[in-house]
Amino acid sequence: MIQKYPSVLLENAVNEFAKLPGVGRKTALRLVLHMLRQDNKTVENFSSAILTLKNEVKYCKSCYNISDADICPICSNTSRDSSIVCVVENIKEVMAIENTSQFKGLYHVLGGIISPIDGIGPGDLQIESLVKRVAEGHIKEIILALSTTMEGDTTNFYIYKKLAPYNIKISMIARGISIGDEIEYADEVTLGRSIINRTLFNESFNL
Amino acid sequence: MIQKYPSVLLENAVNEFAKLPGVGRKTALRLVLHMLRQDNKTVENFSSAILTLKNEVKYCKSCYNISDADICPICSNTSRDSSIVCVVENIKEVMAIENTSQFKGLYHVLGGIISPIDGIGPGDLQIESLVKRVAEGHIKEIILALSTTMEGDTTNFYIYKKLAPYNIKISMIARGISIGDEIEYADEVTLGRSIINRTLFNESFNL
Ligand SMILES: [Zn+2]
Ligand SMILES: [Zn+2]
Repeated sequence: MIQKYPSVLLENAVNEFAKLPGVGRKTALRLVLHMLRQDNKTVENFSSAILTLKNEVKYCKSCYNISDADICPICSNTSRDSSIVCVVENIKEVMAIENTSQFKGLYHVLGGIISPIDGIGPGDLQIESLVKRVAEGHIKEIILALSTTMEGDTTNFYIYKKLAPYNIKISMIARGISIGDEIEYADEVTLGRSIINRTLFNESFNL
Repeated sequence: MIQKYPSVLLENAVNEFAKLPGVGRKTALRLVLHMLRQDNKTVENFSSAILTLKNEVKYCKSCYNISDADICPICSNTSRDSSIVCVVENIKEVMAIENTSQFKGLYHVLGGIISPIDGIGPGDLQIESLVKRVAEGHIKEIILALSTTMEGDTTNFYIYKKLAPYNIKISMIARGISIGDEIEYADEVTLGRSIINRTLFNESFNL
């Protein structure tokens, strides 16, 4: 279907919005027309917020999380346990784990996972910097918290091999049935692994 | 759930994206992180396209469609039948009807429909300008192509009463479109047919 736009300016804006992931041309048009109905200040704020972020964004020199300063608020928080580091793909996972309030160590943000199909190799990720952090000798445990996909596992193994020479604990987030899920709908691989990695009932519930 | 952002710049950008209709904070974060992964030029183009549209947008002085010039390409197309005018809510409906290739007349874009609950009255819409166009004497038929909702019908009746003094045909798109559906989501075939099978407004409502 050829969409005929009555205005080149409109078409340009729709084209730009349609580049966003998960946004088709119809949705893009709807979003652009919504913006057109807002006042100038609202559109200026929208337009400048993303440009300012892109131009001024920094990454923490220690954990590579997004940060406004050279060292992020998590790394500079002295009440956190700097001997334990959770390795994640991106800032979204940092935020998700922070929201659980279950982890008080530090992070290391890889910036993705190894994915040959997307042309992402170990050199594109913050893996050397992780090895360097570990080599400094202060870290006692690394928790691997990557996606439970083939790419995640490939990355897990790569990092595991890189860190093997160092005398630290390397753990991985538990894989099992999601809380609230019904057993009959769980996939076989997850179910099988959840049986192999079963935990003591009393220990699980502090009985 | 309180989301803790590691960066104020990031939080600002997420806040702006989350103002878009249908975009929650999780989606906004995903969109912003996607933009961060693009090169500077891509982000600049995105940022400037919406701002340029907002700052430079014009509305056709005849039909009030969005236009880059004072008169839009449809109104200035002399091969179209200027004696028949299709009244629509917004530019999305112009584009939807244009895509059916079933209509070769002109449009009149109201800019919405009468909706007391949203505080939109006749004075907020391009109704007086429609009456003025009709009063000029060249128009032979007005097709009402508004949503088949209560608000659409209210607007239909209001316009019908306003145009009643003039000796023109007032038709309405056929109710092949299911009651309660919005025009912009109708499929092309149904929409095209509903224009071909348009009925006389007064006959449809036994006036
Ligand atoms: Zn940090
Ligand atoms: Zn026009």
